[in-house]
Amino acid sequence: MPFSLTPKDSSFYDMFTASATNLVEATSVLGDFLHDHTRRDELARTLRDLEHKGDNATHAVFRQLNSSFVTPFDREDIYNLASDLDDVMDAIEAAADLVVLTGLGTLPAEMGQQVALLQRCAQVTADAMPRLKAMKGLSDYWIEVNSLENEADKLYRRLLSRLYSGEFDALEILKLKEVADQLEEAADAFEHVANVVETIAVKES
Amino acid sequence: MPFSLTPKDSSFYDMFTASATNLVEATSVLGDFLHDHTRRDELARTLRDLEHKGDNATHAVFRQLNSSFVTPFDREDIYNLASDLDDVMDAIEAAADLVVLTGLGTLPAEMGQQVALLQRCAQVTADAMPRLKAMKGLSDYWIEVNSLENEADKLYRRLLSRLYSGEFDALEILKLKEVADQLEEAADAFEHVANVVETIAVKES
Amino acid sequence: MPFSLTPKDSSFYDMFTASATNLVEATSVLGDFLHDHTRRDELARTLRDLEHKGDNATHAVFRQLNSSFVTPFDREDIYNLASDLDDVMDAIEAAADLVVLTGLGTLPAEMGQQVALLQRCAQVTADAMPRLKAMKGLSDYWIEVNSLENEADKLYRRLLSRLYSGEFDALEILKLKEVADQLEEAADAFEHVANVVETIAVKES
Repeated sequence: MPFSLTPKDSSFYDMFTASATNLVEATSVLGDFLHDHTRRDELARTLRDLEHKGDNATHAVFRQLNSSFVTPFDREDIYNLASDLDDVMDAIEAAADLVVLTGLGTLPAEMGQQVALLQRCAQVTADAMPRLKAMKGLSDYWIEVNSLENEADKLYRRLLSRLYSGEFDALEILKLKEVADQLEEAADAFEHVANVVETIAVKES
Repeated sequence: MPFSLTPKDSSFYDMFTASATNLVEATSVLGDFLHDHTRRDELARTLRDLEHKGDNATHAVFRQLNSSFVTPFDREDIYNLASDLDDVMDAIEAAADLVVLTGLGTLPAEMGQQVALLQRCAQVTADAMPRLKAMKGLSDYWIEVNSLENEADKLYRRLLSRLYSGEFDALEILKLKEVADQLEEAADAFEHVANVVETIAVKES
Repeated sequence: MPFSLTPKDSSFYDMFTASATNLVEATSVLGDFLHDHTRRDELARTLRDLEHKGDNATHAVFRQLNSSFVTPFDREDIYNLASDLDDVMDAIEAAADLVVLTGLGTLPAEMGQQVALLQRCAQVTADAMPRLKAMKGLSDYWIEVNSLENEADKLYRRLLSRLYSGEFDALEILKLKEVADQLEEAADAFEHVANVVETIAVKES
């Protein structure tokens, strides 16, 4: 593990970077989870562990916020940034858990593409977090996340179109939609993270 | 009725306490509603009345907000607190109404447990509201609500697992999910209330 | 087209008015879409074009926000107002697209009523936007939108009641709910717009 999620003397920048790096790991595990049936129980547990790690990171931010006299940007924005990063992780972990508990087997190829978009979102988010310090080069980040989220929306629509094409019965559609909706929610939550960063940047400008 | 929901000369603290006490009543009625088939129509009407009472309480806050020169905390936080308390009530009333309109009979035991968690959320929320005045002893409250909401999430997952276990057909799953989703939304809205209180406390610290 | 959505030297008031006027057009097209089966593909494309126009309007607001030293109200409120207007358009476009991709035929009459409420919401919103300048006569607007959204909620419940009445099978219910949920989301987003306007007015009062 290249970072500590409960750092001492760390700055908010380090904490957000740690949270986002945790999401890079989680989206990577989710990719393996989708493709490798035989390891699903094991990988769902790994995601549960990453989610707990993420929770600790979120609460470290909140504790730091409560004990800091001066903060680098508005307290609400710090709060929202930590919460939105947490929402991404929750949706990723839920997606995997729902695959397991509905007993789904092979998943539609579109879900693999949804996860690939989430992996890219996680990477650009993790790359952007350290740049909050100098408040430079951030617009590229939120523009890319907005564009990735647009792609994710289109993909989600295409997946719905396939679900209702007659290939699946009502029960299968219900199960697949549980999972697809969580993946879509993860993409939305990445966009919310980018929106908070944009809000912070707008205030500073 | 131990409180008035349209108080004269009352403070925001009294108003929030009244709103939350209304939720204690509503979650109690919802418990009876789930368990007693024969009284469902009557109890759904009672919930509708409580929801109207809640609406009046919410609008009393908004009116007071518009006519107050000085407010005890940020106007947006007062607004959000009133709205989030209102969201809890809306979800509770919707859950009961959806049971009636989908014609569901006996409900899975997990729903009774969901409602028990909502009853506890309502109680700790009603107990916490008067403490906003001195801004003391609030962290225990939001920590407990966060933990209750975590339990509610797990319970919701367990319920989904049961719904997809093969025991129910697609139509029954659809109906039960309508209700389960509203109960889950009520738990989320209680967490939002706690988050606003935490936000207020963070600003004051 | 009576307005330009990428105005030069324009004020925020003009931009919000343009966005809301775009929604008047979109809800009108959606009405035709629901009633005229034969033109659905064509009208769904028209809605897609209006959505792109709306996106441009939203981004024009964001660019103006980034380049403005002084803004008529809080930057976050301008941001939220633009985002919420954008959410309405997204939901309207999605509703039409979902009808096409699920291959639904004749739709329940309640959906036509949902769209009629959205048309009224769009009209009162477009009428209110220019009044942001003088900050006068706005409470009538948000009171009407809140009341329209209440009606929309009731209508949505009545539609659900019909969906579960036994008239439709699980697959049809699933498809119809996809559309109904987007229409309900559009009504909610109109209420969010009205809430932001109320927030702005509360701050100014």
